Amino acid sequence: MTIPHPDLTQTVLDACHTLAGFTTTPGRITRTFLAPPTHDVHAFLTGWAQRLGMTIRVDAAGNLRCRWEGNGPNAPTLYLGSHLDTVPNAGAYDGILGVVLGFALVETLGGRRLPFALEVLGFSEEEGVRYGASFFGSLALLGTAGPMLELRDAGGQALRDALTEFGLDAEALPSAEIAGNALGYLEIHIEQGPVLEAAGQSIGVVEAIAGQNRLDLTFTGRASHAGTTPMLLRRDALAAAARFVVAAEELARSTPGLVATVGMMDVKPGAGNVIPGEVRCSLDIRHARDEVRLAALPGLLASAEQFATERGVTLAVTPKMEVQATPMHPQFRALLHQAAADAGLAHPELVSGAGHDAMVMAARMPAAMLFVRSPGGLSHHPDEAVLNEDVADALAVGERFLHLLAAEGGMHGL
Amino acid sequence: MTIPHPDLTQTVLDACHTLAGFTTTPGRITRTFLAPPTHDVHAFLTGWAQRLGMTIRVDAAGNLRCRWEGNGPNAPTLYLGSHLDTVPNAGAYDGILGVVLGFALVETLGGRRLPFALEVLGFSEEEGVRYGASFFGSLALLGTAGPMLELRDAGGQALRDALTEFGLDAEALPSAEIAGNALGYLEIHIEQGPVLEAAGQSIGVVEAIAGQNRLDLTFTGRASHAGTTPMLLRRDALAAAARFVVAAEELARSTPGLVATVGMMDVKPGAGNVIPGEVRCSLDIRHARDEVRLAALPGLLASAEQFATERGVTLAVTPKMEVQATPMHPQFRALLHQAAADAGLAHPELVSGAGHDAMVMAARMPAAMLFVRSPGGLSHHPDEAVLNEDVADALAVGERFLHLLAAEGGMHGL
Repeated sequence: MTIPHPDLTQTVLDACHTLAGFTTTPGRITRTFLAPPTHDVHAFLTGWAQRLGMTIRVDAAGNLRCRWEGNGPNAPTLYLGSHLDTVPNAGAYDGILGVVLGFALVETLGGRRLPFALEVLGFSEEEGVRYGASFFGSLALLGTAGPMLELRDAGGQALRDALTEFGLDAEALPSAEIAGNALGYLEIHIEQGPVLEAAGQSIGVVEAIAGQNRLDLTFTGRASHAGTTPMLLRRDALAAAARFVVAAEELARSTPGLVATVGMMDVKPGAGNVIPGEVRCSLDIRHARDEVRLAALPGLLASAEQFATERGVTLAVTPKMEVQATPMHPQFRALLHQAAADAGLAHPELVSGAGHDAMVMAARMPAAMLFVRSPGGLSHHPDEAVLNEDVADALAVGERFLHLLAAEGGMHGL
Repeated sequence: MTIPHPDLTQTVLDACHTLAGFTTTPGRITRTFLAPPTHDVHAFLTGWAQRLGMTIRVDAAGNLRCRWEGNGPNAPTLYLGSHLDTVPNAGAYDGILGVVLGFALVETLGGRRLPFALEVLGFSEEEGVRYGASFFGSLALLGTAGPMLELRDAGGQALRDALTEFGLDAEALPSAEIAGNALGYLEIHIEQGPVLEAAGQSIGVVEAIAGQNRLDLTFTGRASHAGTTPMLLRRDALAAAARFVVAAEELARSTPGLVATVGMMDVKPGAGNVIPGEVRCSLDIRHARDEVRLAALPGLLASAEQFATERGVTLAVTPKMEVQATPMHPQFRALLHQAAADAGLAHPELVSGAGHDAMVMAARMPAAMLFVRSPGGLSHHPDEAVLNEDVADALAVGERFLHLLAAEGGMHGL
């Protein structure tokens, strides 16, 4: 098939590349929350919004919010976007692509009005790098970002003061909350994983953002001499922990959709000829459905306890984080599937294993995500990439989604 | 039963405690090779040897060598002893106990002469702490310590110059080599493991000093996102390495006498939400019989390779060290068993999983070791201990051993 909007696709890619140059570390892409180059990002995107005739606002949370009003003063608002901040040494597409495509989708309208307004959102903070907590931007739209104002970054600066330094008014934060009638939120984002690439498909519809538990496990045995301690007199903390790693992998492999990862493991004392006396490790377990995840976790921890007990090792488990799954809105998902089918594209459903602003927005309005294939599954890496034709596909699906929503939105009671 | 030589046992323990005070770090026992307090150790033991009427020599390697001549000028020599150096923050018995018991055994003779001379050896270096290489003391008695003279310690001082600084003549090193007719070597040493304690027995006869292989294994997969990478698209280096740890434990548990330890494991990048891309770990595998160890190792490494391959992970194996097993001399072992039986003591055989000077001496003469129970299995630790009655048992077995050897040595052609 021919690529729809080839010029606009190139505009999107060019914009991503231009924005990648607005960084605090030359030669790398690093633009954490409220970093000075964010002003350049706003200026660039504002220029585009002005050319499109949009109304422009940077809210008190530092979110860029550009509106293309709908037909009539009471038209509800469809939010389109993603985040403008990055991790250190990032790629050029995580977050950014979704914001830029928001403007491109307004451009596809060619000046037409829809039965709903479009508000393109460039969230100021999603990655959680600077303040160790995520989603300040989207939480501000829900009116729940206030408690984060007192967080301090590594340099000791309060988030409140960072807003002031950027030229914003922290006291006005409540004014960032969405006031009017919200139709929903659509976020287009790179997949950040290998599923679409493995399936040979350009785009996918997100079924849900996975819920997750993160825990720390500490196995405590007794360090002793690797030569003089017979196997049955050992209290080997690593032998127990290794069984746990194996069990986590087996459980996840045998439970469709479950992912379980032991990413951190610290072995003490850590000498080749000394039996490990203590092992601290992490567990990260995720699934699209909370009941599956929550059914799997206790059995896995019971296994860990058993592996420890069998070896005279004790186990301490410390929960670090729990996030419930966020199903995407069924009618928005259906519209995305229809839009992709209309565009002649395969449209698999997949789960987002990573968190996104859509997770926050879903608490207030119907939310949906469209994923774009990530070559090599890479993200948070300078080699993060997209294929031009995949961006064209995403643009085509988004455009068709707007038309379907315009035609059907009222019927669905959205 | 009553303790034989209660006063002499107390003398032995007192001597160990006195020698523990000769340290470079007040409050701790630290006396590495040629540390200045070694002069005090020599002076203390020399005083005892003088009271016993022994001839005294510190050889060019810094070994203390005190002789109690036998009947006649051509009597062979039975060597008794262990080492005088310690690890940093050591206990009071590792090495020292065997040297002190050598003098005590001479004392049990009450001035009598045997058909063989006794030479009590206080080896200058066994632990390998200062120069990263072990057995300089005992290797000097075999005439093979010369190449170690050029080693340098952490401060850059050559071993050769450390000898000079201590007041020795490195050029005279060849004169340390045993010249006359050697009857054998007996080393009494704490077990440094939990076997005798678990069996409820005071002493044990060493069957062999285990052979060992040490290797480094590096599993290289691909770091990726713990949330967005499905189980079957992962290349998880830790999942492969954990299977290897489990396999090592299972192999050792199912192979009598084999010990296998993964003591070091370094997991990168080491974040809870990132699938490990690289794991480096150690393997330490030991057995009393080389053929058992060498039969076990290839299968284990093949398993590791398979675990890696199944996960798209590559494996690199780097051998770090290989030491062949050293069987103790069968007739000396038999004499130790007989001596223990005569003393009314249980006398299990056990394997030494750690290296000892007896391993070196066995290359030149019949060598044997008697182990003394280690409470808690502890060694290389300030809490390293012995029970008074166990030391008395060791003394009784040693004394009886000398008598049996005197009576039977000729018959055995030793």
